[in-house]
Amino acid sequence: MTPPQAPLSYRATDRTVPTRARERASHDRELVHAILDEASVCHLGFVRDGAPVVLPTLYGRVGDTLYVHGSTGSRPLRLAGQAGPAGQTGQTGPAGPAGPGLEVCLTVTRVDGLVLARSAFHHSINYRSVVVHGTAHQVTDPEEKRTALDALVDHVVPGRSADSRPANARELAATAVLRLDLDEVSAKVRTGGPSDDPEDLALPHWTGVVPLVRGYGTPVPADDLAPSVPLPAYLSAPTAPAAFSAP
Amino acid sequence: MTPPQAPLSYRATDRTVPTRARERASHDRELVHAILDEASVCHLGFVRDGAPVVLPTLYGRVGDTLYVHGSTGSRPLRLAGQAGPAGQTGQTGPAGPAGPGLEVCLTVTRVDGLVLARSAFHHSINYRSVVVHGTAHQVTDPEEKRTALDALVDHVVPGRSADSRPANARELAATAVLRLDLDEVSAKVRTGGPSDDPEDLALPHWTGVVPLVRGYGTPVPADDLAPSVPLPAYLSAPTAPAAFSAP
Repeated sequence: MTPPQAPLSYRATDRTVPTRARERASHDRELVHAILDEASVCHLGFVRDGAPVVLPTLYGRVGDTLYVHGSTGSRPLRLAGQAGPAGQTGQTGPAGPAGPGLEVCLTVTRVDGLVLARSAFHHSINYRSVVVHGTAHQVTDPEEKRTALDALVDHVVPGRSADSRPANARELAATAVLRLDLDEVSAKVRTGGPSDDPEDLALPHWTGVVPLVRGYGTPVPADDLAPSVPLPAYLSAPTAPAAFSAP
Repeated sequence: MTPPQAPLSYRATDRTVPTRARERASHDRELVHAILDEASVCHLGFVRDGAPVVLPTLYGRVGDTLYVHGSTGSRPLRLAGQAGPAGQTGQTGPAGPAGPGLEVCLTVTRVDGLVLARSAFHHSINYRSVVVHGTAHQVTDPEEKRTALDALVDHVVPGRSADSRPANARELAATAVLRLDLDEVSAKVRTGGPSDDPEDLALPHWTGVVPLVRGYGTPVPADDLAPSVPLPAYLSAPTAPAAFSAP
């Protein structure tokens, strides 16, 4: 769904240019998408009664749009239907699906390695993260809602939405979906080894990177699954994600 | 540093009792500590100019206190020295290390498995998360600061702080540490398989849990490490974390 003439990078704003370690920051669209597609949960931040709230949640990506979902009764979903600017929730007016939206910050992080320096000070981690700022709006168009829910399922396991029963009318009505456009977005990446100070190089401590590896374990069938149902091809190659890279 | 008579659970408040899936929520201190100790990064949320900001960062735990650190020039650290209630940063008064603190929400999440149901609607993930609400304050006591920095290094690799050069006066001065007491805290845990609706049980889709496994890869020595320096014992057993459990 990326428009044919989409720019290669997201725009830099005051909020997406870090004050520290700027050389690690990027607005490259391809990098941002790759990080978003690899992680499984995001951390969604919003303001409730003036205070920050950060909740882990699933998400899906369709082109330059992210979707998160939840029960129509969950807090961020209700706030998105009620909130004024900056998450002010004092209003008591009726909550509508086409409300003014909820200001959010959605962050995704992959930790790739532990960086052990000779000095405590230079210890670090190798990571890739994406931070998205914007206003999330409830999706009201039924077709977009279906597309979003497919994206959410396919984000958990690619290819899975075509191999499960789609949501019915009752389930669709019970599910609220928030849309967040990728516009004010940045990625941050640290790779490589530690950088010790010259005067520390003779110290006797081991120094280097401990990669963190991850992947699928052996799938565990549900108790009520008939033995005749085979493991689908999209699950039968338990491997560490291809995107994992040693430092 | 847990006081001898510490209660077994953190207190339940309006913010730490979820509106949804209450049966997954817990305030058990031991569970909260175990999740915090296993994860490597947290997501720290705060309010800046009225909008939410969520940044990944390292942390350490000492008893019922969490510590995060950063450059004295980084945004949350500066805000903690400036902020009034609820992260209002409009004041122009002098920033002091003993400022009124920064209201934060610190969240840690471990994803343990992908839950595949027959219906798209019942797809889920198995996870363990901790959400901490509170006001973070800059640490000014030099002894507490050293303890906090040791805890941060030992959180990355247990036992590492004793095998690295401690921070010197210059490094200590360049590092700000925020303290966040564990008080308004909750854990949330989902385990087990999918729960399909009875009318879906005959559908032909595979259903079950795909565990996510993780662990250390093979350590990669730094380019400038002398070959005579052995791999320390705390890194020589590359294993999946003991806390990982299949669903």
